[in-house]
Amino acid sequence: MTTTLAVGIDVGGTNTSFGITDEAGKIHVSGHISTAAFDAVEDFVAELNAKLAPRINRLGRERVVGAGIGAPNGNFFTGEIVFAPNLPWKGVLPLAKLFEHASGLPTVLTNDAKAATIGEMIYGAAKGINDFIVVTLGTGLGSGFVANGRLIYGHDGLAGELGHVTAVAGGRLCNCGKIGCLERYVSATGIAITAAQWLQERTTPSMLRDINSKITSHDIFIAASKGDALALEIFDYTASIFGTVLADAVAITSPQKIILFGGLAHAGDLLLVPLRKYFESALLPIYRNKIQILTSTLQGADAAILGASALVWENRNQMAVKYSN
Amino acid sequence: MTTTLAVGIDVGGTNTSFGITDEAGKIHVSGHISTAAFDAVEDFVAELNAKLAPRINRLGRERVVGAGIGAPNGNFFTGEIVFAPNLPWKGVLPLAKLFEHASGLPTVLTNDAKAATIGEMIYGAAKGINDFIVVTLGTGLGSGFVANGRLIYGHDGLAGELGHVTAVAGGRLCNCGKIGCLERYVSATGIAITAAQWLQERTTPSMLRDINSKITSHDIFIAASKGDALALEIFDYTASIFGTVLADAVAITSPQKIILFGGLAHAGDLLLVPLRKYFESALLPIYRNKIQILTSTLQGADAAILGASALVWENRNQMAVKYSN
Repeated sequence: MTTTLAVGIDVGGTNTSFGITDEAGKIHVSGHISTAAFDAVEDFVAELNAKLAPRINRLGRERVVGAGIGAPNGNFFTGEIVFAPNLPWKGVLPLAKLFEHASGLPTVLTNDAKAATIGEMIYGAAKGINDFIVVTLGTGLGSGFVANGRLIYGHDGLAGELGHVTAVAGGRLCNCGKIGCLERYVSATGIAITAAQWLQERTTPSMLRDINSKITSHDIFIAASKGDALALEIFDYTASIFGTVLADAVAITSPQKIILFGGLAHAGDLLLVPLRKYFESALLPIYRNKIQILTSTLQGADAAILGASALVWENRNQMAVKYSN
Repeated sequence: MTTTLAVGIDVGGTNTSFGITDEAGKIHVSGHISTAAFDAVEDFVAELNAKLAPRINRLGRERVVGAGIGAPNGNFFTGEIVFAPNLPWKGVLPLAKLFEHASGLPTVLTNDAKAATIGEMIYGAAKGINDFIVVTLGTGLGSGFVANGRLIYGHDGLAGELGHVTAVAGGRLCNCGKIGCLERYVSATGIAITAAQWLQERTTPSMLRDINSKITSHDIFIAASKGDALALEIFDYTASIFGTVLADAVAITSPQKIILFGGLAHAGDLLLVPLRKYFESALLPIYRNKIQILTSTLQGADAAILGASALVWENRNQMAVKYSN
């Protein structure tokens, strides 16, 4: 018996990872290419296909159901990447169509947070769960909402931008042009801004003051792990903002689980313990003590490949070559 | 050819309306009984069935697919009313089961805002729309979210409590025990609190000062209609809070339409014009200028009956007598 397979491709600003997986979550082969090295997206796609084609042929092309791509600002409905600030190619890029033409494989595309969400549903902590939220805590804050067992894409494919709800009225200016967006506080970038601001404003001693380069979220994690009071207070503040926003999101979709994914989720209890406290106190009483907040068990480059390949399993009934020219 | 029919029952704190409708939205017969007059829910159900049974028999019992009930704090999953503060009966009431036993009709129940939402989907402005939000603006603020063509119930049946997201940090105390909930600002009750507070705090002249009884949302509407500056500012303030919360909700579900239903929605442009302004400016740029905010075309007692009966059409494949004892 031969299992069927799916290609998963995770497009990042610097590197692109790819793999060929089965439905049980085993990655049979994997690899990566540079994203940043290609001035034209067509050349990037050609190289990606050149790397993948021999691997696909070796495993058996007839076993491969299709390809899933997770990419920044990816739109599931159109298969396009739409104005992604961190990619070398500008404007609207029909990446699903380009890859489908190059590879001959039916291809679906979505943004990286939605790919991670479907990855949790197919392989991770949300298996068998119909109502849950995934929040990806990286450079920014992304999210995917699942209700009635289906990912919410919204009428335009652009649902799930929890990073841009107003978390602090009159707060920090966001890259999107709005004020006080959640991701300016709760993300690797956001927590580092809090640290820089507080070190400037306050005179409290902190081991963070010994860092001569630009402070990173990892520095704050290390300091907090060692008991640094200011670093712990930064996590507490971050958790207070995040907890309130998550409680408001619960009032909309009432999920069974909230799964945190990505860099800042590695902070574990430093984030989770204060987060659960603020979250519970901000919840409407009917929701208290029944919604789990946990960190993903899928992590690293493999998780992104699994998430992208999970797109294929999630859409298997619709997988067909569809970009006709 | 005989059309099939559904019973719709809208349970309010004072009165309960009922009707028998067809799928085109025609109400063939209707009536009402007092809610408040019955000390025991069993007596209320008996009277409701006594009024309905002869009407059902006259139209043809075999044509009636089932009954839908919209009720405060109704839970679709359990068929129960759960601790509804405005009803004469306390605790957890298995109303769907009681009515099913009394009438012999398969019965589904949900809360009044979710019934209104399904009413919009079957009969109203959301017909054929897969992603939309309904907000009911009455004494409180209720909501229903539809994504992928299905109402979001959440894992526990309790999704859609937009009235209890934190709209104003450190704001007004809500009946639910939380601080700054949306419905303390945006509802018939909320706008009246704003008026009372501002009349006390300020010395601005206003025709609202001539009212000797407790100010109602209708008084504010009348004053604003006549150009009263304070009343207009009250609508502007209400819209500013509502617009920000709606923009945040859009970032989660990206709806095509937002439909306002109930008393305060009758204020029309007095609310809609400032609301659209604040809403658009609070939206993430990718969502701007494409989401409609409009008022329901279904209004009054008929709308509530239609909403409740729409529950039957929405669930027709699952309609069966299910409460076995």
